[in-house]
Amino acid sequence: MDDINFAVLGTGGIGRRTLELSTHREGLTPVAACDRHGIAVDHDGLDVGELLDATEGNIASGDDTDDGDDTDGANVAADGGATAVKQHGEDRGVAASGQARPTETPIDDVVDESDAVDAVLVALPNLEHDFIPRVADRFADAGYEGVLVDVLKRSRVIDMLDERTDRFEEAGITFVCGAGATPGLLTGAAALAAQSFVEVHEVDIWWGVGLRSGYEDNRGTVREDIAHLDGYDVETARDLSDEEIEEIVDDHDGVLEFHDMEHADDVLLERAGICDAEDVTVGGILDVRNDAKPTTTTVSVTGTTFDGERGTNTFELDDVTSMAANVNGPALGYLKAAVRRNRTEDYGVYGPAELMPGF
Amino acid sequence: MDDINFAVLGTGGIGRRTLELSTHREGLTPVAACDRHGIAVDHDGLDVGELLDATEGNIASGDDTDDGDDTDGANVAADGGATAVKQHGEDRGVAASGQARPTETPIDDVVDESDAVDAVLVALPNLEHDFIPRVADRFADAGYEGVLVDVLKRSRVIDMLDERTDRFEEAGITFVCGAGATPGLLTGAAALAAQSFVEVHEVDIWWGVGLRSGYEDNRGTVREDIAHLDGYDVETARDLSDEEIEEIVDDHDGVLEFHDMEHADDVLLERAGICDAEDVTVGGILDVRNDAKPTTTTVSVTGTTFDGERGTNTFELDDVTSMAANVNGPALGYLKAAVRRNRTEDYGVYGPAELMPGF
Repeated sequence: MDDINFAVLGTGGIGRRTLELSTHREGLTPVAACDRHGIAVDHDGLDVGELLDATEGNIASGDDTDDGDDTDGANVAADGGATAVKQHGEDRGVAASGQARPTETPIDDVVDESDAVDAVLVALPNLEHDFIPRVADRFADAGYEGVLVDVLKRSRVIDMLDERTDRFEEAGITFVCGAGATPGLLTGAAALAAQSFVEVHEVDIWWGVGLRSGYEDNRGTVREDIAHLDGYDVETARDLSDEEIEEIVDDHDGVLEFHDMEHADDVLLERAGICDAEDVTVGGILDVRNDAKPTTTTVSVTGTTFDGERGTNTFELDDVTSMAANVNGPALGYLKAAVRRNRTEDYGVYGPAELMPGF
Repeated sequence: MDDINFAVLGTGGIGRRTLELSTHREGLTPVAACDRHGIAVDHDGLDVGELLDATEGNIASGDDTDDGDDTDGANVAADGGATAVKQHGEDRGVAASGQARPTETPIDDVVDESDAVDAVLVALPNLEHDFIPRVADRFADAGYEGVLVDVLKRSRVIDMLDERTDRFEEAGITFVCGAGATPGLLTGAAALAAQSFVEVHEVDIWWGVGLRSGYEDNRGTVREDIAHLDGYDVETARDLSDEEIEEIVDDHDGVLEFHDMEHADDVLLERAGICDAEDVTVGGILDVRNDAKPTTTTVSVTGTTFDGERGTNTFELDDVTSMAANVNGPALGYLKAAVRRNRTEDYGVYGPAELMPGF
């Protein structure tokens, strides 16, 4: 496959790590990156080392609000968004890089460069449910032909993207949604594990995240995670003070266990025809005080084979693999798969499971 | 995706089970099936039940020679080929079905129908290394535009197919090679498990096959498996008498353990850019006397993450999943993925790992 020029919207946790990871992968050239204050563009390829060094530093929530999409720890880095960057003299964030300039219209500036871009990874904080869909609209309106990839996880956002299918097809956009860890890597693993079966009864996705595994850079997201604890929901969690959150974490000795989370794995597996959304459960354990993962991230797919046996295939990630490795690696993997599709004029909205062998 | 009309070449183990399994999957209509003595065609869809009932029966090696491709037990059913069918009155094999007619040119007869076919599963005994490539030539020569899928496993055949890439691209053929269990399902699992890493050091594929798991219908293949035992190779194994083989099985109490097998997983992972072929090892245990699998089929992928951790991700198949379920399910899954590509004019030769997220 020919080289892929890609851009990153958002240089928080996901954006930064995607840039770093891309330097380890063949055929990926980052040509643009932006946050809310600046944009760096180099059609010959950004100097990722310089960009990361210049913008590395204190993790500040700054004037950014929490993004509202952090329904768990597993894809939490998606939501670091534009917040986790350096404040460096007068130029904040990306603008601190020698390759960048300040701007007040960063997304439009990337749209302006999109003729030279094959794929865009959307790693923006999802302030509103429809924020990422509306960003996609701007690319479609500008006549962008290429790939858009996000690592969102809220099930309801998928529907908003689906409504835009015709628009994307007209423009020539291949949109891959939920292409991080869960949904993403683990959704794909479930789709593959299902291949032994003719009927899938249950998909159980269970994740572990420890401090070293990526939580430290994304502390603010515990608020959204709390929404999944017994006795809380998104609204009540949003109203908690920092002190109240700290108290809840203390009450749990720093170890928070989640069940039945709103994760798009369910709708993404259903749209691939693998099982009903209601047969998918997502949960996990987040340890905000220890480096080690408190539990092993595992996908279990239970089904019946054509010859009538009921069994469970499993996919396990090594405990040493960080959340960042499991989000950003697959994001770039799905991005590559999407570019291949886009180049054969295969447009529209796809989830990770649809980029796997069919069911 | 629109419905897929497919044909099966060969109604031995793989062919029969593919037909059966397709009745459990959405959007797959079998319209033609042949063995060396007959062909059944129905553009509205074959009556699979009738076809299987009519041709079910004694497993006879008949006048067929062993196919020479059985380098292990895991994909062994691929090689049942046209042998495992009924001898029914004057009409042998497929011709025993009320939907079929005898023919002396079964493959040409399917080629003649290929305008009405989206995909062909090649489940023929691979008598010579180049037998399947030569079958593909016949489809290309006839101007077939569509998908060809095989479940071969010998590494050297991949090269022969690669040499035909231009020919396939001109004709409009998307050829997916090695789309069974290993290579196939497990190759895909390795490609997915690799996504956590930026460098893959080792892929270890380890399979277990027991009697119930599918060995019983494919006894003849133990000869080729023996080629992988210490002290034997393909040539010496070929020269063994049935009595000598029985003796070897007795010496091992019916449990044969294989290491460093020639499996195309290695070249298929290398061509997807995931690791060097030499970093892939395939082995397993075949128990010809017990129903239960003697070991759990497992893929272990060891690599280093972008943040410097070395770990191993694993994919495990439940012991109750039969070889047939793990060969034929993925074969149809990859077939569906290939049809999608073919319909966007994405032609050429692909292995299973290339149909996964990119690396």
